[in-house]
Amino acid sequence: MERVRVVPIEAAWVERAQARQNRLTKPPGALGYLEAVGVRLAAIQETLYPALGKGAVVVCAADHGVSAEGVSAYPPEVTRQMVRNFLAGGAAINQIARAAGAEVYVLDVGVRGELPEHPRLIRAKVREGTGNIVHEPAMRLGEAEAAIEAGMHAARRAIREGAALLAAGEMGIGNTTAASALTAGLLGLPPEAVTGRGTGVDAATYRRKVLAVRRAVARAEARLGDLERADPLEVLAGLGGLEIAAIAGVFLAGAEAGRPLVVDGFPATAGALVAVRLAPAVRDYLFAGHRSLEPGHAHLLRALGLRPLLELDLRLGEGTGAVLAFPLLRAAAEVLAGMATFEEAGVRDRG
Amino acid sequence: MERVRVVPIEAAWVERAQARQNRLTKPPGALGYLEAVGVRLAAIQETLYPALGKGAVVVCAADHGVSAEGVSAYPPEVTRQMVRNFLAGGAAINQIARAAGAEVYVLDVGVRGELPEHPRLIRAKVREGTGNIVHEPAMRLGEAEAAIEAGMHAARRAIREGAALLAAGEMGIGNTTAASALTAGLLGLPPEAVTGRGTGVDAATYRRKVLAVRRAVARAEARLGDLERADPLEVLAGLGGLEIAAIAGVFLAGAEAGRPLVVDGFPATAGALVAVRLAPAVRDYLFAGHRSLEPGHAHLLRALGLRPLLELDLRLGEGTGAVLAFPLLRAAAEVLAGMATFEEAGVRDRG
Repeated sequence: MERVRVVPIEAAWVERAQARQNRLTKPPGALGYLEAVGVRLAAIQETLYPALGKGAVVVCAADHGVSAEGVSAYPPEVTRQMVRNFLAGGAAINQIARAAGAEVYVLDVGVRGELPEHPRLIRAKVREGTGNIVHEPAMRLGEAEAAIEAGMHAARRAIREGAALLAAGEMGIGNTTAASALTAGLLGLPPEAVTGRGTGVDAATYRRKVLAVRRAVARAEARLGDLERADPLEVLAGLGGLEIAAIAGVFLAGAEAGRPLVVDGFPATAGALVAVRLAPAVRDYLFAGHRSLEPGHAHLLRALGLRPLLELDLRLGEGTGAVLAFPLLRAAAEVLAGMATFEEAGVRDRG
Repeated sequence: MERVRVVPIEAAWVERAQARQNRLTKPPGALGYLEAVGVRLAAIQETLYPALGKGAVVVCAADHGVSAEGVSAYPPEVTRQMVRNFLAGGAAINQIARAAGAEVYVLDVGVRGELPEHPRLIRAKVREGTGNIVHEPAMRLGEAEAAIEAGMHAARRAIREGAALLAAGEMGIGNTTAASALTAGLLGLPPEAVTGRGTGVDAATYRRKVLAVRRAVARAEARLGDLERADPLEVLAGLGGLEIAAIAGVFLAGAEAGRPLVVDGFPATAGALVAVRLAPAVRDYLFAGHRSLEPGHAHLLRALGLRPLLELDLRLGEGTGAVLAFPLLRAAAEVLAGMATFEEAGVRDRG
């Protein structure tokens, strides 16, 4: 696979930005977590005056063989139907992106069936959905690499077309099952702890889902040994999804290009964890848009050390929870870049 | 005082909007709290396709006699200095409002000293700061009414100049002490439960602050009896602030004009509670921008039945936590107005 070079942010920039933050006309820390966000944006952009121009979201889509186990509330053809909905502008992500002034790119890395030509559809189908992870690896190692590279190319296109701020989202019926298996494997957690209701499954479906995750993880462990210590690419190929691999690629290329990156919900954050396992400095560029209701998501955020900007009980995916947070990142940048200091404004500090 | 007529939202519109929300191409409830926000915006605007144009924030400013008790980390002249900072565009609210596409109006209802002419400064000084509530009422009843009316006029100007979405913020050194006294009184809570660190006071200042709140509440009770059941206007005059009164006025006139209203932090939400006590239907128009670190704020939000959109440990005021939430309200409106239904998009529902 193509090598990426991700440069960690510099502690010196963090210190300089924090020093400016402390001189601005507000009690120190009064903007809470937004201040830390502003400081990290400054360090990423290597300036005391961070600015976020246009945003973009790459919605990565693929199908999942594990949906044959009856783990989802929706039939698998909904993946393709929803991709058409994204292209027609009728989905939640389209409205949320328009409200946030962000471009929507759709990346097909593994949707079953044909999709129409569209200027914002990036065609990079690696295969028509993954294998059923209960019985076989999701994909071959080379396929996982190809899906990651497809994500990289999509991110680079978005950046070339002006994205200063980048999010990755997903669409794939069955993908919270894959995300649960991947999370259980990479974090060494019991399947029940990281398996949730996804798009809203009933009790019987939930039991099938937990069982599928348990069997998939056991199968991968039999092959790869301790999944926490195994090659993350192997674990991804064994348990993941093509769109989850692509999301890892979006974050790898986005971090390489020095862009702030916003993570969405459970499957997207599983992709972020894969990217960080492959290149730890990616972590410096990640912001968590929100915390979803999926129990595995909280585990992933904790493992990545990310505090969510929003907690609105979202569980949709598509990148919605990431793009909803774009205006907060913009505000954090504007505050640090635009506010007057106590001296500049002639305001008495308490010192 | 001028009478306002606030019309409650109609249950029929809530039902109609919820029915549309349920047919949109997402699992029901997948956008969490945002869906309820969208539904309420629809009911406020009496349409299934809510739209939020320009936003505005009225920052109400005044001084507090109680600052003589040494309850704040900043000297009282900072109120006036910060108002000048708002007018010069150097404060946090200016950057956050610019990022959110919102207009900033500054309303002087009681700042000590002179302020320069400025197109966005509304001059309606009722008196130069309140009385020290430890020893005397904050203001006379007629002064409280005048401050409320000043807030109403400011809201109407913002609406006349195009505001579809309205927030109220505050600036006033000492005003978390007044907000604590008012909250303890109106909600019948012990002073310690609703008194926080404000802009960041030390332990000794905090002790003085709690004592001041306790003495102020005891003084008002001696005069008015049970403050939970007393005339809210009398309690406001006894314990409140001129800017808190003005904020109540902003919300009263904003609700009368049928605008969605966004509440900021502790003193602003105390103003919202006064407005709701004066006209209960105001509640239907209120959204909580955030939950601040002030302990009294959580009590007020609970009493008003408001769920905060953001929990970022903000404690600045100025309207910052309200305007930060504007893009979330906009997104909630766009989702309901713009998304395709399952039928329209040809996406299979699970039904």
